[in-house]
Amino acid sequence: MISKSEGELPAVVAPTAACPRTAPRALLALDPAMAREVFTAQAWRRLEACVRLDRSLTAVGGFDDPALREELAACEILITGWGSPHLGPSALARMPRLGHVVHCAGTVKALFDPAVYARGVSVSNAAEANAVPVAQYTLAAIILGAKRAFTLAHRLGAGSLDEHGSHRDLTGLPWLGTRGLTVGVIGASRIGTRVVRLVREVLDASVLLYDPYTDAGLTADPAVRRASLAELLRRSDVVSVHAPLTPETDRLIGAAELALMRDGTVLVNTARGGLVDTDALRREVLRGRIDAVLDVTDPEPLAEGDDLHGAPNAFITPHIAGALGNEITRLGDLAVAEIERITSGLEPWHAVDAAGLGRLA
Amino acid sequence: MISKSEGELPAVVAPTAACPRTAPRALLALDPAMAREVFTAQAWRRLEACVRLDRSLTAVGGFDDPALREELAACEILITGWGSPHLGPSALARMPRLGHVVHCAGTVKALFDPAVYARGVSVSNAAEANAVPVAQYTLAAIILGAKRAFTLAHRLGAGSLDEHGSHRDLTGLPWLGTRGLTVGVIGASRIGTRVVRLVREVLDASVLLYDPYTDAGLTADPAVRRASLAELLRRSDVVSVHAPLTPETDRLIGAAELALMRDGTVLVNTARGGLVDTDALRREVLRGRIDAVLDVTDPEPLAEGDDLHGAPNAFITPHIAGALGNEITRLGDLAVAEIERITSGLEPWHAVDAAGLGRLA
Repeated sequence: MISKSEGELPAVVAPTAACPRTAPRALLALDPAMAREVFTAQAWRRLEACVRLDRSLTAVGGFDDPALREELAACEILITGWGSPHLGPSALARMPRLGHVVHCAGTVKALFDPAVYARGVSVSNAAEANAVPVAQYTLAAIILGAKRAFTLAHRLGAGSLDEHGSHRDLTGLPWLGTRGLTVGVIGASRIGTRVVRLVREVLDASVLLYDPYTDAGLTADPAVRRASLAELLRRSDVVSVHAPLTPETDRLIGAAELALMRDGTVLVNTARGGLVDTDALRREVLRGRIDAVLDVTDPEPLAEGDDLHGAPNAFITPHIAGALGNEITRLGDLAVAEIERITSGLEPWHAVDAAGLGRLA
Repeated sequence: MISKSEGELPAVVAPTAACPRTAPRALLALDPAMAREVFTAQAWRRLEACVRLDRSLTAVGGFDDPALREELAACEILITGWGSPHLGPSALARMPRLGHVVHCAGTVKALFDPAVYARGVSVSNAAEANAVPVAQYTLAAIILGAKRAFTLAHRLGAGSLDEHGSHRDLTGLPWLGTRGLTVGVIGASRIGTRVVRLVREVLDASVLLYDPYTDAGLTADPAVRRASLAELLRRSDVVSVHAPLTPETDRLIGAAELALMRDGTVLVNTARGGLVDTDALRREVLRGRIDAVLDVTDPEPLAEGDDLHGAPNAFITPHIAGALGNEITRLGDLAVAEIERITSGLEPWHAVDAAGLGRLA
């Protein structure tokens, strides 16, 4: 296990001797408790070695705190994360030297005013680091979903027997197993393309990919093919959703889309609950026509006593696929590596495309 | 989904025009129903093209059926599988031309008399094909086990809340997540070495490998290291068992071994139930000290009402990790490829090492 840096990071940060006096000034807009989650002791030492770190913003009063005037005026790199305050035009005006924001988390849409991008400040996020555990989780969900492991664990626990008296009661399952599957991936997003890669590396499966905006994820691999949403739904054995939730994708998988899926299709959602019409899905799951592996739901959590919770062919977890526990340090590692690139004069690798923000999660 | 050949294979097989008259004679000691599960229509056509197939043994009366005298006398390649009759010395004596047995399943130990090996007949099995889904399943178990997905799904379904009122109730979990794990693999077996490879490919984890008999699975990868059983148990975050069940490995993981594991260790068993002392494991699981993902148990199934079934930190499936459903055709594909090698004059790839039979599952 990677050791966490708990207790090792100072609550309020001051420049250290490790850092050259000419290094860029950076301001930490992260709660100290969050900083301890995100940065390992090693990541912290790397950070201290490449920027002159000013005290934590949230340890004082946010961007409006008059005591931060000098730090804001000097700040060239702003480090943000979960719980950081919104960066609006007035705060931006107080940071004339700001060139880069590095966000130790995924979603940046609501956090930064359009003025930030308009001024040419680069905004990097750690969505790539968050994508790693989500894609792994999705792969595991596809494997156990295709094996009907959740249904069969439920049957075993209930003492269910097949006609021969076996506890391996496969009665009524339309198909089972991971061989020769067609996996439908909706959204060639950062996570979607990782899922495609993992499916192809680990499973003997082909992939249908639906994304109306991008060719990402399509390679020379002949077993990965672009499809329309309707074809994907009709032909896939497992459907995994990796689209951002936008007005356009809200309830992307509704009653009509579920009806296109064949009996026994496994639907995996590790993205956003709102991508799927829960009422329509519940009907199909309870009829036993569709299996569901859901890390996200709409509403989230489901109402108390929702029948989906008791369904043997549904497995529901409380939004844990993303970076959590020891995975959170991956966000900090990525942020530090990005800052090391920036302070070495290299292009940031994880800069957000401001023009595409509307299509981001 | 790979199409099954159901209904396409003749119940009793006769040599076809596809096969040259000089091709080796092969006898199918497989139940026709099983042959239809194992061989896709395509695999069957490949088989018919490289051997002269005699009628199915089990369609008549087994090796002792006098009607089979000519076929046994001519048989050069014997094809066996689940449910094939035992091949003893008297049957062997009736097959003077037998050079190869190709078994469309994993375990061969009990099926063939030592006289078969003594006479120099090569015995190939399809354990490699069976290893594929077991290793995939184990990877999925490691991922969801490390994510505490089973515990958290249980808590979510029960409406459990943490101190802040969140349904993502991580209370009391010693650690969570797949990053920086140490995965202990017990047994550098066919499956164990595949698990090592998958863990290294998919996860940001290092591996400790214990096997007193072989260096298999150890490569130039510095993140895979050999360890004693005690060190592995003490240092691993996840322990996965892949040893054969022999008198020596019976209850390999007992109370003393479980006691060496740290709080929160995840034990995965997709091998054989008898490798783990169920009573000792139950105590640790119910105390919440060890999590378990078990595809096999001892006894199998567990007694009705066994507390392991209700434990939120245990996930138990009815021995489904191995080839099942659409995965069964992988056994037939491997067997056909092996027969194609043999009939081309190449060395079989999957011949069992007769000297090592005592250590096989």
